Amino acid sequence: MSDTQNPVNPSTPVGPAKGYRRIATEEAWAPPELFRQYRKLLESRVVDDPGFNTMWSFYLGSPSDRARSIIEKIQDLGEQRIRDMDAAGIDVQLLMLTSPGVQVFDAPTAVSLARDSNDQLAEAVRRHPTRYAGMAAVAPQDPQAAAKELERGVRQLGFKGGVINDHTLGEYLDDPKFWPIFEAAEALDVPIYIHPNTPPKSMIGPFLESGLDGAIYGFAVETGLHALRLIVKGVFDRFPKLQIVLGHTGEALPFWLYRIDYMHRATVLSKRYESVKPLRRKPSEYLRENFYVTNSGVAWEPAIRFCQSVLGVDRVLYAMDYPYQFVADEVRTLDAMDMPDEDKKKFFQLNAERVFRL
Amino acid sequence: MSDTQNPVNPSTPVGPAKGYRRIATEEAWAPPELFRQYRKLLESRVVDDPGFNTMWSFYLGSPSDRARSIIEKIQDLGEQRIRDMDAAGIDVQLLMLTSPGVQVFDAPTAVSLARDSNDQLAEAVRRHPTRYAGMAAVAPQDPQAAAKELERGVRQLGFKGGVINDHTLGEYLDDPKFWPIFEAAEALDVPIYIHPNTPPKSMIGPFLESGLDGAIYGFAVETGLHALRLIVKGVFDRFPKLQIVLGHTGEALPFWLYRIDYMHRATVLSKRYESVKPLRRKPSEYLRENFYVTNSGVAWEPAIRFCQSVLGVDRVLYAMDYPYQFVADEVRTLDAMDMPDEDKKKFFQLNAERVFRL
Repeated sequence: MSDTQNPVNPSTPVGPAKGYRRIATEEAWAPPELFRQYRKLLESRVVDDPGFNTMWSFYLGSPSDRARSIIEKIQDLGEQRIRDMDAAGIDVQLLMLTSPGVQVFDAPTAVSLARDSNDQLAEAVRRHPTRYAGMAAVAPQDPQAAAKELERGVRQLGFKGGVINDHTLGEYLDDPKFWPIFEAAEALDVPIYIHPNTPPKSMIGPFLESGLDGAIYGFAVETGLHALRLIVKGVFDRFPKLQIVLGHTGEALPFWLYRIDYMHRATVLSKRYESVKPLRRKPSEYLRENFYVTNSGVAWEPAIRFCQSVLGVDRVLYAMDYPYQFVADEVRTLDAMDMPDEDKKKFFQLNAERVFRL
Repeated sequence: MSDTQNPVNPSTPVGPAKGYRRIATEEAWAPPELFRQYRKLLESRVVDDPGFNTMWSFYLGSPSDRARSIIEKIQDLGEQRIRDMDAAGIDVQLLMLTSPGVQVFDAPTAVSLARDSNDQLAEAVRRHPTRYAGMAAVAPQDPQAAAKELERGVRQLGFKGGVINDHTLGEYLDDPKFWPIFEAAEALDVPIYIHPNTPPKSMIGPFLESGLDGAIYGFAVETGLHALRLIVKGVFDRFPKLQIVLGHTGEALPFWLYRIDYMHRATVLSKRYESVKPLRRKPSEYLRENFYVTNSGVAWEPAIRFCQSVLGVDRVLYAMDYPYQFVADEVRTLDAMDMPDEDKKKFFQLNAERVFRL
């Protein structure tokens, strides 16, 4: 029994869509050097991050079909990836450095690796300008350098925004020390994609012991927490034009709009926490106007349409999550969603073109 | 400015519904003795549970309208509660001991407090048999005693099932040592309501520092984790007839059905975790057939209808979450949901009557 799920069968390609391009907006890549550095970290045991250790000892060490296939595909920025895109009917991939990117290294290593990987990605986009687009990797460990690298990525390399793989060794972007990154994003008028990571050490215990720390659940609640922290700490009052992109149908935050508003108001009014201060707007308003969501990993019409209904059809974008979730049947299913043609075109194409200026 | 949100205005009562009774299925109470014991715990600082400490020092110590109103209302099992029910149009409350119930005490204290509180609740139900119904509090600290107390509660006191307030000092019900409780529930053919609690110490760090450990977010992801742990550890293969009730529109697990199935299968096939073994069925099948969800705290048509659409209209029940969320406007809003009359009657009345044998 294979452990690759519903693999794409190249003999029955999905083919072009009728009336829209399919732009996949949360697609992963990694340079061999990153994995060499991950292996060093794993061997030296210097990183006190159980989530990193379990995730990357699995992908880099497991003999399973899933791990080997992903490690092979994720490093390719050439013909293999494009063959897979063709087989699955994907016109364009928006590429970003896989999680946790450079966010587990000391600052100088992280800054250097971000720069090198961005140069490599830019080169691949230059080779395949109609098929690839890129997001800039940055090293939040050095916020000023991260802001500069975002600017370099956008202005010089043609990237469409930045990707931050969730917490940086347990630190979250609501800490004002990281805000030069948001300031740069707002000034450049580009979005920041907050991609999941495993929960940090201070949170992962009950997830890890039950095997639920990864994409099955831990990723989502950890990344949702990160986004909510940005809201309640007032990031969007300080940077009202900042746009954040979340994958995985918004890490379920769209599902929680009502409860978050209710309980945020109750918390503020009762002055329960020093850290929870009044905001200019309701949390749901920031979620509707400062966030975009993609459906990476959630090729499921009910959740996609729910997001469209509560955030608006202009706020929900298509993503495949290649190579972690490479399933041609998912594309066919989404092509067949019961949705007005214009909304489907927004989902697959127009929103991505607008948000990422493709 | 009052910090009570949208308080019920008794001069404009909601009034009886047309065609259905309103049965609220996750309504909280607490006896004065429980709060006396909580105060002792808080003063002696013997409980190593930051979530308990922050939650109950707020409710028992804050001068805010919210805290004082809740502490007053939650202890009443008489006329004040019934007046509030009348004002909000609630016909029946299904009462359960508030979180974390007895689950923070040493085993003998917990067993004794559960028994005493059950006796008091049963007495209140006897006084108001058409307005109140009860769930048995149990002390998982002593699983055999908890099983016996569940049996006593159902057989002798007329309770409709058991309530467990999430983790017990960081321990989850997927540990087989707790399974006598599930065995009793299955044998008695009554549901177990898993009510939220704050995340345990091993998880709460990033929530607490941002004021997100409570009902705004921490409750939900912690309780969702608990429910998922039951599934992946095979509780429902061992107890296939066991029925679990989750509040808060299923703690968002209905939103995750697709991703959980996909990633569970990938995890099992790749043999990534010793703890994640094959199950007889897909996780979504257990979620659809071994769980009911209530809308406590989520008086929001989109989330309620989403749950109905992916779990089935027989699986979604009404709850108000009194006195934590006591808002007559929410009842009016739900009365007006765009939903077939028969589905609304199932939501407000028939499902509760069937699941809890009211």
